Amino acid sequence: MNKLTVELGSRSYPIFIGQGILDKTEYYSELLNTNQVMIITDTTVEKLYLTQLIEALEGVQVITHIIPAGEGQKNLESMNQIISLLLEHKFNRTCCLIALGGGVIGDLTGFSAACYQRGVKFLQIPTTLLAQVDSSVGGKTAVNHEAGKNMIGAFHQPVGVITDVNVLQSLPDRELSAGLAEVIKYGLIRDYKFFQWLEMHIDDLKNRQFDALSFAIERSCINKAEVVAIDETEKGLRATLNLGHTFGHAIETGLSYKLWLHGEAVAMGMIMASHMSFLEGWLSKDDMIRIQVLITKAGLPKNLPDELLGTNLRELMSVDKKASHGKIKLVLLQSIGEAIVTDKFQESNLKETISHFYNQG
Amino acid sequence: MNKLTVELGSRSYPIFIGQGILDKTEYYSELLNTNQVMIITDTTVEKLYLTQLIEALEGVQVITHIIPAGEGQKNLESMNQIISLLLEHKFNRTCCLIALGGGVIGDLTGFSAACYQRGVKFLQIPTTLLAQVDSSVGGKTAVNHEAGKNMIGAFHQPVGVITDVNVLQSLPDRELSAGLAEVIKYGLIRDYKFFQWLEMHIDDLKNRQFDALSFAIERSCINKAEVVAIDETEKGLRATLNLGHTFGHAIETGLSYKLWLHGEAVAMGMIMASHMSFLEGWLSKDDMIRIQVLITKAGLPKNLPDELLGTNLRELMSVDKKASHGKIKLVLLQSIGEAIVTDKFQESNLKETISHFYNQG
Repeated sequence: MNKLTVELGSRSYPIFIGQGILDKTEYYSELLNTNQVMIITDTTVEKLYLTQLIEALEGVQVITHIIPAGEGQKNLESMNQIISLLLEHKFNRTCCLIALGGGVIGDLTGFSAACYQRGVKFLQIPTTLLAQVDSSVGGKTAVNHEAGKNMIGAFHQPVGVITDVNVLQSLPDRELSAGLAEVIKYGLIRDYKFFQWLEMHIDDLKNRQFDALSFAIERSCINKAEVVAIDETEKGLRATLNLGHTFGHAIETGLSYKLWLHGEAVAMGMIMASHMSFLEGWLSKDDMIRIQVLITKAGLPKNLPDELLGTNLRELMSVDKKASHGKIKLVLLQSIGEAIVTDKFQESNLKETISHFYNQG
Repeated sequence: MNKLTVELGSRSYPIFIGQGILDKTEYYSELLNTNQVMIITDTTVEKLYLTQLIEALEGVQVITHIIPAGEGQKNLESMNQIISLLLEHKFNRTCCLIALGGGVIGDLTGFSAACYQRGVKFLQIPTTLLAQVDSSVGGKTAVNHEAGKNMIGAFHQPVGVITDVNVLQSLPDRELSAGLAEVIKYGLIRDYKFFQWLEMHIDDLKNRQFDALSFAIERSCINKAEVVAIDETEKGLRATLNLGHTFGHAIETGLSYKLWLHGEAVAMGMIMASHMSFLEGWLSKDDMIRIQVLITKAGLPKNLPDELLGTNLRELMSVDKKASHGKIKLVLLQSIGEAIVTDKFQESNLKETISHFYNQG
C-alpha cells in the first residue's frame, strides 16, 4: 500500500493506493471520525462492492443510497434526494458521506456533502480508473445543468481517498480506456518522463497488470496533488488540468452526454488540442503524431463521431466555464510535458481543427 | 459614510454604511470588477430601488431577476432558475451577482453565486435592518429544504456590502422590529455596553432616527465581523451568533415559515434562552427580566403563538444544524454580554422553558 498526501494545510488528506484495501476496517475508523455514515453508490457498483464496504464499517450507523448508473443522475434533483435522506435520518454536521463509484457518484456525493448544512465530510472510494486518477482527487464537485456540464458545484475536499487497484479488474474495457485518457493527460501537461513511460507500457496497462496500473495511478495522483496544492481553486495553474476538456465538454454537450464517455471526449479533445498546438506552430508534427498514436493505442477515439455532423462545436465551446469576457481560453501544448492556458490563438486554427476531425475517414 | 472591514485574509471585504449611498456609482466600479452583472431582487424592493441601482451601474451588462417576495422563494428551484438565466446570458466566471433585498434575497443570491461554476463573486445591498446587521455579513448562504431551514448552503463571502441606512425609512414596522432582534443579540452575546446603549436608545431606533440606526448597525457589524474573522466556518465561537436560533428555527418550522418573521422567532428564542439560562442558575432573574423588557420594547413577541399549541417544539429542535451526535447544543447566557454553546443542560429545564411560554397569557 502506498500513501500520498494532498497538501492543503488544514484540509490536507491522504490517498491510499493498494490491492484489496477497500474492505479493510483500519482505513475507515480514523478517516470517518463519526457515527453517522451514508454510502452513495450506483446499481452497478452496489452488486460488486457494497456488502464488503458495509462490513468494513463496523460500529457506525450506515445508511445506503443507491442510484441508477450514469451521468443522467448528476443533477440537482439527485442532490436534493440525498439531502432529504440525510434530514430524514437526522444526520448532523459530524456525519460523513462515502462516494463508492466513478466520477458521477464522486461529484454528486461531494457536492451534496459540500452543501448539506453548509458542508460535511466525505470520503472517496473511486471504482473506475478515471475517478482514481482524476475526479476523486482535488475537491472539485458538481452536478450538471441541462444547459451545461458541471455548472453547479463547489470546491470541497474529501477527508481521504481509498483507491483499491483490484476494482479495476471488473471495469469494462471502454471505461479502462477512458481512464487512460486522463492518465495520458498528466504526461502531456507536465510530466514528459511519464509520457515516455506510458509509450512503453500502454499494453501492460490495457492488460491490467497490477504493477503498471499502480504506478500509473500513483504518478497521476502525484501530478494532480501537486497542481491542486499550488492552485486549489483554479486561479491559474490548475486550469492546465483541463487539457482537452473545452473541446471534450462541447462534444459531450453536443451528444447530450450520451454515446461517448467523458474520458473518450477528453481524449478526442486532447488530440484536437495537439493538432491546434501544431497549427499554432508550438508543437512539432512528430510530437503531435506521438500523442495521437498513444491515445489511439489506449483504445480511444481519434475522430469526431458522425452524430456531431451539423452541430456547431465552436458555439458550444463558448459557454465553457473557461470562457472569459466572451473569449474562450484553451489549454494548449508548447511541447509534450508543457501546457499553457491562453486566449491568444488564431480563431481560424480553431475552426480548421474542428473541421479537420470531421473529415477524416 | 463609514467603512468597516471583515478581516478574512485574501477574502477580506468592506462594509460601507451611509446615507443615500445605494445609487453612487463610485462604490460599484471597484467592487464589481466585471462587465457582467445580474441583480437579483424581489417584487417589493424592485419598485423602490431597482431603477436607481441600474443607473448607478454604468457601462456594464446588467440583467435583472425579480422574484416574488418571501421565504417561500428560498429553495433549490429558485437557485436553479438563476443558474439557467446566467447560462442563457453566457455569464462567465468573472461575473458578479448583486443581492438587492433582505435576507431571503441575500441567502439565495449568495448560494447561487457560491455554486455557479463553483463560485463567482457577489455583492450585498441589504434593504432590511435584519439583513444589514446580520445576514449580509459573514458569508453564510443557503436555501431551505422542505424538512429544514438553511439545510442546503455554503460559506461564500461577498466582495462587499453596501448598507444604505436611508432604505430603512421604507421598511414596515414589523420588519424593523425583527431586525432589532438581531441587534439586541450582539449586546447579549458579547457587548454589554452596547446592550446598555440599546436600553437607552430603543425608542430612537423604533422612531428611525438616522444617527441611532447608523450607530446600531455599525456596532452590530463590528461585532459580527470580529466573530466571523475569528471563526469563519463556525467551528466554535461563531456558534454564539445563533443565540435564540435553535428555539427560533423550531418555531419557524412549526409555523411552516409563515405567520412570524425570522427576527420575531429569534427574539422569542432569545427570551426562551434567557429563561433557560436563569433556570440553569447562570443568569440572574433581574437580567432575565431586563432582556425580556428590551425585546418587548423593540416590538417583538414574548410568548409562543397559539398556532404552535400541539406542536412538539422539542422534537423540532433536535433536527437543528447545531445538533451533534443526537444531543442538541444550545447557546445560553452566563450573563448579559457573555454567551456559551453547550449541550450540558438539564433536559427538564428545556422542557419547562418550552411549556412556560405556552402558558403565559
